[in-house]
Amino acid sequence: MKITILGTGGVGRSFAEKLTSLDHQVMMGTRNVQDTLHKNTTDSYGNPPFSEWHKANESVPIEPFAKAVQFGKIIINALQGAKVLPVFESCNSDDLNGKIIIDISNPLDFSKGFPPSLIDGLNNTNSLGEELQKLLPGSKVVKTLNTMYNGIMINPNMINNGNHTNYICGNDTNAKETVVSILKDFGWKKENILDLGDITNARGTESTLLIWTRIYGATNNGAFNMNIVK
Amino acid sequence: MKITILGTGGVGRSFAEKLTSLDHQVMMGTRNVQDTLHKNTTDSYGNPPFSEWHKANESVPIEPFAKAVQFGKIIINALQGAKVLPVFESCNSDDLNGKIIIDISNPLDFSKGFPPSLIDGLNNTNSLGEELQKLLPGSKVVKTLNTMYNGIMINPNMINNGNHTNYICGNDTNAKETVVSILKDFGWKKENILDLGDITNARGTESTLLIWTRIYGATNNGAFNMNIVK
Repeated sequence: MKITILGTGGVGRSFAEKLTSLDHQVMMGTRNVQDTLHKNTTDSYGNPPFSEWHKANESVPIEPFAKAVQFGKIIINALQGAKVLPVFESCNSDDLNGKIIIDISNPLDFSKGFPPSLIDGLNNTNSLGEELQKLLPGSKVVKTLNTMYNGIMINPNMINNGNHTNYICGNDTNAKETVVSILKDFGWKKENILDLGDITNARGTESTLLIWTRIYGATNNGAFNMNIVK
Repeated sequence: MKITILGTGGVGRSFAEKLTSLDHQVMMGTRNVQDTLHKNTTDSYGNPPFSEWHKANESVPIEPFAKAVQFGKIIINALQGAKVLPVFESCNSDDLNGKIIIDISNPLDFSKGFPPSLIDGLNNTNSLGEELQKLLPGSKVVKTLNTMYNGIMINPNMINNGNHTNYICGNDTNAKETVVSILKDFGWKKENILDLGDITNARGTESTLLIWTRIYGATNNGAFNMNIVK
């Protein structure tokens, strides 16, 4: 399947590698292709320059956001939270009509340091997932995987024999089924994928970052996830 | 030990039974003792009238809040979130000076139905735990157990052989150690109690109610907890 990944950070790269290995055709989207290809410093998360990664993954084309979203049947939103709405606003919504947007982003605000809060207006009684769906009513936003470290997103068997919880929510049942089939290809077991309902439930999953970041701060280990036990 | 429990709902009753069974001397605090004893309807959570419970637990005295807090060396805050600050404001802070307040409450706002949000001003960049600590700087607020159903709080072995996570946070290390010893008496294993640090981390634990209530809504089962797996 043709899949566009928006964002060239560590999360976007992980998805590009994984989806390519699963024989999907992948295109990455970025603000300015030349800037992204010529940046020669690590990013704020410590990821090496994109060009280094791209040398080992040359088959993945990279295009400006507005062009990249024309390519995929499915769009993966791996942008930093604060950039999500401006980037999608800069694209032609006709190019996104009827398409599934897998939203794995979180509205993190690091302006006061670590641990981050959630962006003002995008928490508690609202969420980034909802605002994205409102911005693109013709698209099918499916929020998932946003509650864990990206290595675990694409390789759940990395910890606890794959037994831990991934939430999914969105307004379109068929779109969620399509996304679940991709999650299964990543190694997710159906019984560990919990459908919370419509996209307003992104309020719940995005808010888990407020505890996730504190667990990370207390344990100095991001390679964990929550498993619902009963 | 002398322990005061504020709140006579399902949570307060569970703690009263458990602490009594562990040979602690327990007193419960309420707004108006006669009202509480003579109410003859179930509460909004479906708990039977207090008087019914009290018949089976006559040894537990019940007093007005301000008098009840004089009794305990430790105070357990099992009040509904919106009532916490007004109730503690109505007490004499001298009666709470130097004492540990175990805060198991959450700032839930059900005014727009289920799932609730968190009370405006007590979420994301603030928390009820912090505001309680600010109100009573001479007391030692320890936030814990607020991320699960009350049956599991006092009986962790109810699910998954007791293997699931309880967070604790607060500014006073000795106070947290005292609370951990009580948690162990409830059956909590030390390795499942995660100290997140100071009381600002209540922002993380209280926010988990935004996902907890949605999991409950999706599964119709409250007898679950999160287990951090790695």
